[in-house]
Amino acid sequence: MAIKVIKVGEDILGANEEKARTNKQQLDKNRVFTINIMSSPGAGKTSVILSTINRLKDKVKIAVIEGDVASSVDAEKVSKLGIPVVQINTAGGCHLDANMVESAFKNLPLDETDLLFIENVGNLICPNAFSLGEDRRIMISSLPEGDDKPHKYPAMFADTDVILLNKTDLQPYLDFSFDDFKKTVTNLNSDVTIFPVSCKTGEGMEAWFSWLEGEVESKKGQAA
Amino acid sequence: MAIKVIKVGEDILGANEEKARTNKQQLDKNRVFTINIMSSPGAGKTSVILSTINRLKDKVKIAVIEGDVASSVDAEKVSKLGIPVVQINTAGGCHLDANMVESAFKNLPLDETDLLFIENVGNLICPNAFSLGEDRRIMISSLPEGDDKPHKYPAMFADTDVILLNKTDLQPYLDFSFDDFKKTVTNLNSDVTIFPVSCKTGEGMEAWFSWLEGEVESKKGQAA
Repeated sequence: MAIKVIKVGEDILGANEEKARTNKQQLDKNRVFTINIMSSPGAGKTSVILSTINRLKDKVKIAVIEGDVASSVDAEKVSKLGIPVVQINTAGGCHLDANMVESAFKNLPLDETDLLFIENVGNLICPNAFSLGEDRRIMISSLPEGDDKPHKYPAMFADTDVILLNKTDLQPYLDFSFDDFKKTVTNLNSDVTIFPVSCKTGEGMEAWFSWLEGEVESKKGQAA
Repeated sequence: MAIKVIKVGEDILGANEEKARTNKQQLDKNRVFTINIMSSPGAGKTSVILSTINRLKDKVKIAVIEGDVASSVDAEKVSKLGIPVVQINTAGGCHLDANMVESAFKNLPLDETDLLFIENVGNLICPNAFSLGEDRRIMISSLPEGDDKPHKYPAMFADTDVILLNKTDLQPYLDFSFDDFKKTVTNLNSDVTIFPVSCKTGEGMEAWFSWLEGEVESKKGQAA
């Protein structure tokens, strides 16, 4: 049976870009290495942030911006670790934007921060279209979501620097092909680095910590 | 440490409602029971649709509208079962709207359809704000996403008639509390019906099929 495909145009406006540039200048001036973390709901953004804080907090000064449609449950978890955190509630908005992030800067000690995590809203559609001023984009994709997600949400996978492929501990119970996933992703994005990890068991996490620590050190060494 | 919360206002416009009403009239005239299926990416929307088609297609005349940001992989799976299907690609749009669904009607045999599935874009944020003309809203939530999702995406959970709680086969390997999930959901939405299911093993699916068949029969019996 023939399939009818209807294409619906929708403009994603770029008015956000100028504000993202001024955010980046402010972060560069303070030599804050900043990552914008994006994923589906429940892929493990907050778990990765908490685990990374626990591993690196004695060596690296960390701050966090939490983006959610509603609630501050994630920010409360971060705050319990003694880390400066701002919660942004988007009140129905699908993504963070550069203005929201700038508002959060006023409540964070940027001059005493080496590493800033920005946890975006759980959404695989539009967060990549809004730069926040970050150095790197990190996607978390999890095995239970299926190996076909890069086919269905290509813009997000095309537009990230690193993918943490999380929940590898569930592999024996799922039909997930690492080869298919990797092939689709590298067709969209030949430069991407993929770290297979289980945030729950810790498997693979050291490679991620090392990469991140290297990037933080590199930014600290840059001329402002 | 005190947490600073910034609230960002965003209007979700209701200009869609009038078109949804005319869609509903067209569906009612043809006595098509229509469900709008919403979930995170990878929760199991397409698997539930395929499984339901296989179970009911000898008794019920089914048609499908597939909504995706990109690709027509889901529509191809439906089409292989000999079911009329239209793929809508939203080109970056986060949700289906009533205009898109009306465009699809022109390519579907509504007068020979008893049950219409509309698979929305995989997103837990805004799809609920856009009525499509459906009779019922169905959410699919899956165990690996975590039992805290109703806290974080309350509008979606508050605004659905039925929840299929999918991937129950993974329960032994996850920290998911049915009680916590159910308690949060019923606080948001006291009328919701929850079906725990595993689309993969078939566990719990008969209750869903029975509910759905009852609704289809009820609509067929209504005066147009």
